[in-house]
Amino acid sequence: MKARVTVTLKNGVLDPQGKAIEGALGTLGFAGVGSVRQGKVFDVELNGTDQAKAEADLKAMCEKLLANTVIENYSVDFA
Amino acid sequence: MKARVTVTLKNGVLDPQGKAIEGALGTLGFAGVGSVRQGKVFDVELNGTDQAKAEADLKAMCEKLLANTVIENYSVDFA
Repeated sequence: MKARVTVTLKNGVLDPQGKAIEGALGTLGFAGVGSVRQGKVFDVELNGTDQAKAEADLKAMCEKLLANTVIENYSVDFA
Repeated sequence: MKARVTVTLKNGVLDPQGKAIEGALGTLGFAGVGSVRQGKVFDVELNGTDQAKAEADLKAMCEKLLANTVIENYSVDFA
């Protein structure tokens, strides 16, 4: 089973990397870019077909390893 | 207008970061993880309401800055 975990910074958390990209896009001539925030995506391939178990496992993985829940949100989607 | 750009490694491109996460998940006791590949996500806020223009702009941003098209694929979604 294929799943995609998306980890993004919470609102209010400073994102210097996103700010740098915003500046670079302006320098490249892209007008009208309001803001850019960068996050991470993990494409996880899981054995088994029980989607409920897979979702529970993926949430546990996010809590333990993939996301820093103090400053980041995560979401789990199945392909 | 809010858009999400997802940049992932092409198939066949080695992903040592994903491999490390895979190993770490195994060490943490998560069995049944087949493979992990890591990518990037950019949440871009654009001024204007013309979605076709926004999509063309975002693709140009990907080609020029956000993605390395030699080894990465990108996709653009609107929220």
